[in-house]
Amino acid sequence: MAVYLHDIPLAEAQRRIREALQSAGLWGVLGKETLPISEALVGRVTAEPIWARLSSPHYHSAAMDGFAIRAEDTAGAMPTAPITLLVSSQAAYVDTGDVLPQWANAVVPIEQVEALNSAGQPADDPRHPYMIRLRAALTPWSHVRPMGEDIVATQLVLPAGHVLRAVDLGAIAACGHTEVTVTRKPRVAIIPTGDELIPIGQPVKPGDIIEFNSLVLAAQVTTWGGEPIRFPITPDEEELILEQVQEAARESDLILLNAGSSAGSEDFSARVIERLGELLFHGVAVRPGHPVIFGILSRPGAPPGDKVPIFGVPGYPVSAALTGEIFIEPLLALWTGRSPAQPEEIEAILTRKITSPAGDEDYVRVVVGEVGGRVVAAPLARGAGVITSLVRADGILVIPSGVQGIEAGEKVRVRLYTSSRNLNRTLFAIGSHDMSLDLLAQFLAERGLRLVSANVGSLGGLVALRRGEAHLAGSHLLDPETGIYNIRYVQQYLPNEKVMIVRWVEREQGLIVQSGNPKGIRGLEDLTRPDVTFVNRQRGAGTRVLLDYHLGRLGINPEVIRGYQQEEYTHLAVAAAVASGRADCGLGVTAAAKALDLDFIPLFQEAYDLIILCKYAEEERIRAVFDLMADSRFRHAVAQLPGYDVGQMGVIVQTC
Amino acid sequence: MAVYLHDIPLAEAQRRIREALQSAGLWGVLGKETLPISEALVGRVTAEPIWARLSSPHYHSAAMDGFAIRAEDTAGAMPTAPITLLVSSQAAYVDTGDVLPQWANAVVPIEQVEALNSAGQPADDPRHPYMIRLRAALTPWSHVRPMGEDIVATQLVLPAGHVLRAVDLGAIAACGHTEVTVTRKPRVAIIPTGDELIPIGQPVKPGDIIEFNSLVLAAQVTTWGGEPIRFPITPDEEELILEQVQEAARESDLILLNAGSSAGSEDFSARVIERLGELLFHGVAVRPGHPVIFGILSRPGAPPGDKVPIFGVPGYPVSAALTGEIFIEPLLALWTGRSPAQPEEIEAILTRKITSPAGDEDYVRVVVGEVGGRVVAAPLARGAGVITSLVRADGILVIPSGVQGIEAGEKVRVRLYTSSRNLNRTLFAIGSHDMSLDLLAQFLAERGLRLVSANVGSLGGLVALRRGEAHLAGSHLLDPETGIYNIRYVQQYLPNEKVMIVRWVEREQGLIVQSGNPKGIRGLEDLTRPDVTFVNRQRGAGTRVLLDYHLGRLGINPEVIRGYQQEEYTHLAVAAAVASGRADCGLGVTAAAKALDLDFIPLFQEAYDLIILCKYAEEERIRAVFDLMADSRFRHAVAQLPGYDVGQMGVIVQTC
Repeated sequence: MAVYLHDIPLAEAQRRIREALQSAGLWGVLGKETLPISEALVGRVTAEPIWARLSSPHYHSAAMDGFAIRAEDTAGAMPTAPITLLVSSQAAYVDTGDVLPQWANAVVPIEQVEALNSAGQPADDPRHPYMIRLRAALTPWSHVRPMGEDIVATQLVLPAGHVLRAVDLGAIAACGHTEVTVTRKPRVAIIPTGDELIPIGQPVKPGDIIEFNSLVLAAQVTTWGGEPIRFPITPDEEELILEQVQEAARESDLILLNAGSSAGSEDFSARVIERLGELLFHGVAVRPGHPVIFGILSRPGAPPGDKVPIFGVPGYPVSAALTGEIFIEPLLALWTGRSPAQPEEIEAILTRKITSPAGDEDYVRVVVGEVGGRVVAAPLARGAGVITSLVRADGILVIPSGVQGIEAGEKVRVRLYTSSRNLNRTLFAIGSHDMSLDLLAQFLAERGLRLVSANVGSLGGLVALRRGEAHLAGSHLLDPETGIYNIRYVQQYLPNEKVMIVRWVEREQGLIVQSGNPKGIRGLEDLTRPDVTFVNRQRGAGTRVLLDYHLGRLGINPEVIRGYQQEEYTHLAVAAAVASGRADCGLGVTAAAKALDLDFIPLFQEAYDLIILCKYAEEERIRAVFDLMADSRFRHAVAQLPGYDVGQMGVIVQTC
Repeated sequence: MAVYLHDIPLAEAQRRIREALQSAGLWGVLGKETLPISEALVGRVTAEPIWARLSSPHYHSAAMDGFAIRAEDTAGAMPTAPITLLVSSQAAYVDTGDVLPQWANAVVPIEQVEALNSAGQPADDPRHPYMIRLRAALTPWSHVRPMGEDIVATQLVLPAGHVLRAVDLGAIAACGHTEVTVTRKPRVAIIPTGDELIPIGQPVKPGDIIEFNSLVLAAQVTTWGGEPIRFPITPDEEELILEQVQEAARESDLILLNAGSSAGSEDFSARVIERLGELLFHGVAVRPGHPVIFGILSRPGAPPGDKVPIFGVPGYPVSAALTGEIFIEPLLALWTGRSPAQPEEIEAILTRKITSPAGDEDYVRVVVGEVGGRVVAAPLARGAGVITSLVRADGILVIPSGVQGIEAGEKVRVRLYTSSRNLNRTLFAIGSHDMSLDLLAQFLAERGLRLVSANVGSLGGLVALRRGEAHLAGSHLLDPETGIYNIRYVQQYLPNEKVMIVRWVEREQGLIVQSGNPKGIRGLEDLTRPDVTFVNRQRGAGTRVLLDYHLGRLGINPEVIRGYQQEEYTHLAVAAAVASGRADCGLGVTAAAKALDLDFIPLFQEAYDLIILCKYAEEERIRAVFDLMADSRFRHAVAQLPGYDVGQMGVIVQTC
């Protein structure tokens, strides 16, 4: 089969993997091992059916404390016609769980007999009387726990392919086993490569990329039942990489060769695989993660038929992690004899339009929540390097290769990472970013609630509320005519809803400048200087509205401001731009400047409110926010942020 | 607070636990530890919020292979008016991921430039030309991956109380951390006690009880985030038990003192706790598992406020495991800072009436499946010693203490152990037991399907089919008038359904007798002998019908048969009764006799069919059974069972 250096469809890639593994005799359980039952077996998979060796119980036992008797000896006993049995010839005391004597076939509970001495009086020790008197007959096998009540020897206790749980270990021990034969853990070698990579813990300088894909892949492998072996970083030299791969191929069942992110790195992987074995594909039409490579090597020093599969894993973190989910998890499931993970799926309404290049299966990370009884999915950042998109994701929306995009408002199917039962514990705060929302997220997490915030600016937040995509929106939109925040915009954008406006914080806004203020910036007028570069906020952001308002008052034409077109979406991103030298200044809040050790020129005080639809105001997750607004520990934490005033936090600006 | 030796309600028990732990300062996260990120951290819980130390990326990098330039230098470039830039003064080659030079603010991809030598001709090495020619202008920050695109230093990456996954470890490493502070694992001492207990692996004699509760509890503790310490078995001697508990109390966070099943064992636990600390309850109104005990001890050799909670765990396996789920899991969740497990719940229709003693919360184990679009729940064996009820259970139905029973057909809520997505992979085979059904279960498991079989006898199976509680029923009901199996009964019990009857096997039935046939039994006539004890099958069983038919033909009055009233529900249970000496003989199949090394007197040949409702016949799980009936490997396996003939397996006796 020819290997073209272009992306093949995912289904074709999976077919080639299956065929190659089938030819190599690797399409099934890899192997098994027999372990003592006391080893850590939870999560391991039975390799063989488990048939009972013993019955459980394995003997007839007394089910109560009392006297073992022959039921026939009690025939005819009645309250008016009691029967007396002699102990040690017709009756014997037994505790619960004791072996039933061979001659006995029933137990009379001690409460149902009169224990008498030889004189017919109550015995000194009721468990060792001379005789017992009964006033009711017993049927055979009364109060006896018969052998095999639970398990009968030879019956099937657990099938093969069963993932062991704690209670299973009890049943296995109960029926006489001391060992369990389970599928063995595949050994997976993980080889990171790349000149720019540094190991975790090494001090970081520009140009260094912290190598953590091997950590993530190793943790994935462990989660999915394998045994990872992490190799140290190999530089981008083909002979060194080949050496490492050969070393790995001696002892491993699978090799994950992780390329760096530079273009050349991937080519090394492909060439090494071609030199050591057979390259079966180079590039799959999935995004992110298309530069994934697959081949089959011969195991060094072993008979020719002994093969080792190898994946070239892409360098970008999201690509690497998704390669794990798409290709490695099903393979480890197959090799350990369990079913592949089947994520829960849910139907949701897409909040924002997504475009998707033709020809690729697009794995879009989304957050999912429930707003007003509808399930909505909001896409996260698409970049292959944005590992927080996997951390924040509630699930994956797979856009098939024929589809070029999905419109906002359309129904989509999401493969969940979380459980759908968590959806009502998620609060969607969509609107203007504020650093206090990170604190809110922390405090809500203590209450088992999750805050998902999307930074689309104040206006974007009002629109999201109107479209039923958020529970609340943060907003600080100044009405230039009245100098009042938010009320007019709420009326304008949410005319048909009853809306509550609650004061959250009052914050200082000003110019964030480099440490030491090298350009001597003092106010908005300095933005017109040719030697000053500005970085702006996006249209619709309250900070942008604030800027434009004051520029208007000062008679400054935005076109003369260098960098006015450069837009960032959060205060911290503006600060980051200034800190990196990309810009000399930007308008933002004090806390953002202080967070990155920048200087700050305070200019304005503004109100930042939470906009809440009245129909959600009584939901538990919203009430939790109100509780926190009154919580002194929370208010104190927010007040610690520089430039923040919580004096009005919780004041209702507009009631329902 | 007085401790009465009677059961308290579960809510009261939970309240006493909470108060005691709050007083002891143990109602919250127990402690934390800081571990290197490369340790096995998946599943651990963050003890503190994680704020980014570094931005990621932490420098501006080239997003493409190309040339770093100043965007301003390209102003005005057009296809008809190209601009030329000199390399090493106005342009520098960069690979993807390289640091953007300080003077640059954009990257032009290599495909978009002409790389030229000093003579204006194509350069030898396109990455090291003398100059580059562009035909389009670039905006600032084109093809640059800016610092902080993913994570900005100081932002919240993960809150406290987050259960770590593989991708989280990547984000934590990406933002500059080398360690993670997680909640520490509670140390849980597990102390089994009881004279009758033997460790796993020791040869078993009657009266011995294999000690496996400590194995199950330890596996539960590990699953729930704790670190178990299993003690060896302690005999039923109060001073020895007290010594072990004191030893455990030195170093553990929690002690699980597992009583044996004899009545005295539990009293030792209570007395030891009273002597070493404070006993807070002894008995909770839950079934199974009511003899659970709780107390608080002082840690030996530590300041007086340093306390250790202790549970007395009941001896019966189901009670012990349920004590774990009810009391231990939520406590370990609290101590490790995660939310307690919230099982998925589902509404189901109860198939059989359940009685429940007033005053107890009853935890009834059930199997759950989907039959004909309805979700049904069938209760499993109720005994506290029947650990297979926990192995087989799909979930728990909790009957509140006020309720004394639930009728068949009522809607109930089940807390699932499995996922509701597995329900359509479960096949309910309710009816006559046959040993080949164990083989069917095994082969179906290979196909990811689960067979749940309930042994209610042939007639019970037809009734279950009629009531929509089963997908298929095994039946071998002989019509005495025609000598034909099943058809008449199907007509009688399922008059309103279209029913398919498929021949499964033909089996030999006869008398199962003890090895060596000491009573010299030769046929049914011997059942009338006073020295011969019989064990019967339950009414409605095909074997019972067979027996009664032949007794009738022989003119034998059942009343003269000793043991005719003794009923068992499966062939193996009949064989077990004979093997144990409880009976001299019973009617059953060859395979049951051979399984327990008993002798067998063959008497009759009978047909055993599968009864299938036509409306389910096309479902995947039923088709799988048909596939197996044609599968040579399966047919061969069944044919190996002694007394089984598969010649007619799969023959349609009655079509749809």
